[in-house]
Amino acid sequence: MTTTTTAWAAADATSPLEPIEIPRRELGPLDVAIDIEFCGICHSDIHTARNEWHGTSYPVVPGHEIVGRVSATGSEVTRHAVGDRVGVGCMVDSCGECESCVDGEQNYCQRGAVMTYNSRDRSGTAARTYGGYSGSIVVTEGFVVSVPEGLDAAAAAPILCAGVTMYSPLKHHKVGPGSTVGIAGFGGLGSMGVKLAKALGAEVTVITRSDKKSAEALKAGADHVLVISDAEAVRGAGRSLDLILSTIPSTHDLGPYLGLLKRDGAYVVLGAIEPLTTPIHGGMLAGRRINVTGSMIGGIPETQDVLDFCAEHGIASDVQVIGVDGINDAYDQLAGGDPGYRFVIDMSTLQPV
Amino acid sequence: MTTTTTAWAAADATSPLEPIEIPRRELGPLDVAIDIEFCGICHSDIHTARNEWHGTSYPVVPGHEIVGRVSATGSEVTRHAVGDRVGVGCMVDSCGECESCVDGEQNYCQRGAVMTYNSRDRSGTAARTYGGYSGSIVVTEGFVVSVPEGLDAAAAAPILCAGVTMYSPLKHHKVGPGSTVGIAGFGGLGSMGVKLAKALGAEVTVITRSDKKSAEALKAGADHVLVISDAEAVRGAGRSLDLILSTIPSTHDLGPYLGLLKRDGAYVVLGAIEPLTTPIHGGMLAGRRINVTGSMIGGIPETQDVLDFCAEHGIASDVQVIGVDGINDAYDQLAGGDPGYRFVIDMSTLQPV
Repeated sequence: MTTTTTAWAAADATSPLEPIEIPRRELGPLDVAIDIEFCGICHSDIHTARNEWHGTSYPVVPGHEIVGRVSATGSEVTRHAVGDRVGVGCMVDSCGECESCVDGEQNYCQRGAVMTYNSRDRSGTAARTYGGYSGSIVVTEGFVVSVPEGLDAAAAAPILCAGVTMYSPLKHHKVGPGSTVGIAGFGGLGSMGVKLAKALGAEVTVITRSDKKSAEALKAGADHVLVISDAEAVRGAGRSLDLILSTIPSTHDLGPYLGLLKRDGAYVVLGAIEPLTTPIHGGMLAGRRINVTGSMIGGIPETQDVLDFCAEHGIASDVQVIGVDGINDAYDQLAGGDPGYRFVIDMSTLQPV
Repeated sequence: MTTTTTAWAAADATSPLEPIEIPRRELGPLDVAIDIEFCGICHSDIHTARNEWHGTSYPVVPGHEIVGRVSATGSEVTRHAVGDRVGVGCMVDSCGECESCVDGEQNYCQRGAVMTYNSRDRSGTAARTYGGYSGSIVVTEGFVVSVPEGLDAAAAAPILCAGVTMYSPLKHHKVGPGSTVGIAGFGGLGSMGVKLAKALGAEVTVITRSDKKSAEALKAGADHVLVISDAEAVRGAGRSLDLILSTIPSTHDLGPYLGLLKRDGAYVVLGAIEPLTTPIHGGMLAGRRINVTGSMIGGIPETQDVLDFCAEHGIASDVQVIGVDGINDAYDQLAGGDPGYRFVIDMSTLQPV
C-alpha cells in the first residue's frame, strides 16, 4: 500500500523549498521502511533543486544523507530489523548484474544507478524517487546500511555522501601509513578527507587558495597547509605527494597541483564535474607518469565500511543541526561558499502540511 | 684517451645533416666502447635536430636506437665483453640514487637522466653527449643492454626506443590475456604496440583517424580497427577497452577515446607532450574512474626485458634500412607523416670525413 509523508520540495528552479505531501511506495518483500531522523544537506541538493545540472523533474525532494530507524520490513528482508538505526546515501537501487554492481561498486553501475532523488523509480510502484528531506522513505534492503549506535546520528548523516566520497578514493589508491595525501579545498568534503586520511595513517597536506582556513584545517588534523598561490612553498613541496583528492568545485589549472605529485602520483577530481578548461600538459603526465583521474561517491560495501571505520576511529562530520524551516537559509549560505561544516536537518521538526 | 669518430650532425636548426668528426670520451673503468652497426631514426631526432623542442646545442648528433658490438671494455666492466652485440637507447646515465633510479626506472630519474644526445656529459671527460649516427660510442655499462643474437640487428634497433616506449606502459598497466588494449595512431610506435600487446595476450584495437591504414594494422596483428570519426562504430565500442596507448603526436580531443574505456580504464599519453588544449571533462573522469596518464620511454631493466621478449616471441620492427646519405630524405619523409615503419641507418655506409 502506497503511503504518504510530508517532505520539503522545490516546485521549480527558483522557488524556495516548501512542505508538500509525497507518496512513498508500497513496502515490497525486500524493502525497508525508515522513519527519518536526520538528513544532511549536500551541495548536489542545491544544484538539483535549482536545476543547475539540468534534468531536474519538479517537484523535487532533495536529500541523500539519510539517517533514521527502521519502522517496517518486507517479508524477505534479512539484513535489517524494526528499530535498527540505518542510513541511505546517494543511491537506492542499481541493476545488480553488471560488472560494477557485481563488484559492489553500484556507484559505477553500467546501466546507471537509481539515485535517491530525481530518478525514475524502477520498482514499479512509484514514479519518481524523492529524497530525505521527509518523514520517511522506503528503500530496498541492499541499499540500506547499518549506522553504528556509537555514532552520533546527526553527525553520521554526512558520512553517507561526503564521507564515502572521500573514503572511496583513499581506499582505491591504497592510502595507509607512509602515504602522503593532499586535500585540495577545505569545505565539507575536505574536512572529512583530512580526518579519514589521518585515521588511515597518512601525512596530510591541505591545499587551499588562501590561508584563512589554515587554523580550521590544522584543527581537523592536517599536518600541513599549503597555499597554492605561494609559489615558493609550492616549489618546496614539489614531488612530495602520492595522491591529491581535489574537492575544488569547478574548473581550475591543474598545473601547480600536478607539480606536487611524485612519480605515479594521482590527482583525483571529485568536485569539478565539468570541462577542465585550462589545458593539462601531456609532457607533465608522461614525465612522471602522473594520473589525472576522478571518483564518484562509493559503493554500498564501501559506504558500510566508512561508517564502521568512523565509529571505530571516533570520526564525525562537523555539523550544524537545523530545523526544516532553516533549509532555505542554509541553501543560500552554502551557495555563497562552503563553510567547512555540514548542515544537517533535524527531521523531528517536520510538521504535517 | 679521447678518441674521435665520424658522425652525421646538424649544424643548426635549418641545415641538412652532414658528416663531421666528433670526440668520444676516454674509456673509464665502467665504460663500454661500441662499434655501431645500426641506428634507428626516431621522430625525436628530427624535433631535436630542427630545434622544435628548443634547447638544442649545435652541432647535434641524433640517434638513440643504437645496435653494435663491443670493441673495448673498461677495467671494471663485468656485464659485457668484447664482441658482444649490445644496444643503447635514449639514456646513457642517471643519478643512480633517487627513488626512480633505485627502482630501475632511470627514465624518471629525479635529477634528470643523461640523454644519449644533446645532454651534458657528466663523466667529466666530454662536454656533450652525441648520439648514434656515428661510428662508435662510449657508454657506462649500466646503460648498455644485451641484444639477443636471435634478433636481426637492424630490426632490433627501434626496440630500444619505440619498443620500450610501448612495452613499459603495457607492463605497468598489467596487460595480459583477457586485456583489451587500444592503440591510438598507427605509425612506428603504434605498430610496435600492436605486436607487443598481442604477444602479451591482449585483444588489440587500432584506433585511427582514417581507414587507409586498416590493412597494415590488421597485418601487424590487430584484432580490430576503429576509425575514430565513425560515430556509430565508436558508440558500439563504448566502454570496451582497459587501456589505450596514445601515440597521437599532438593535442587532440580525448573525449571520444575516453568513451571507449571501461571503468578504471587508462588513457596513456605517449606522443602529445604538449598542452592538451581540448578540455577534458571532469565528470567523465569521475563517472567511470578513468585515468588520463602518460609514460616516457622505459627503464634499463625494462629495455632489456623488451629485447628478450621480442627475441622470445619473434617480434621485430618493420624497418627500411638506409645508408647514411639517406638520412636527410628520411627526415623529410618522416616530417610529412609517420609511414608505419622505421628508418634504420646502416652504419657500415659511413665514410671518414
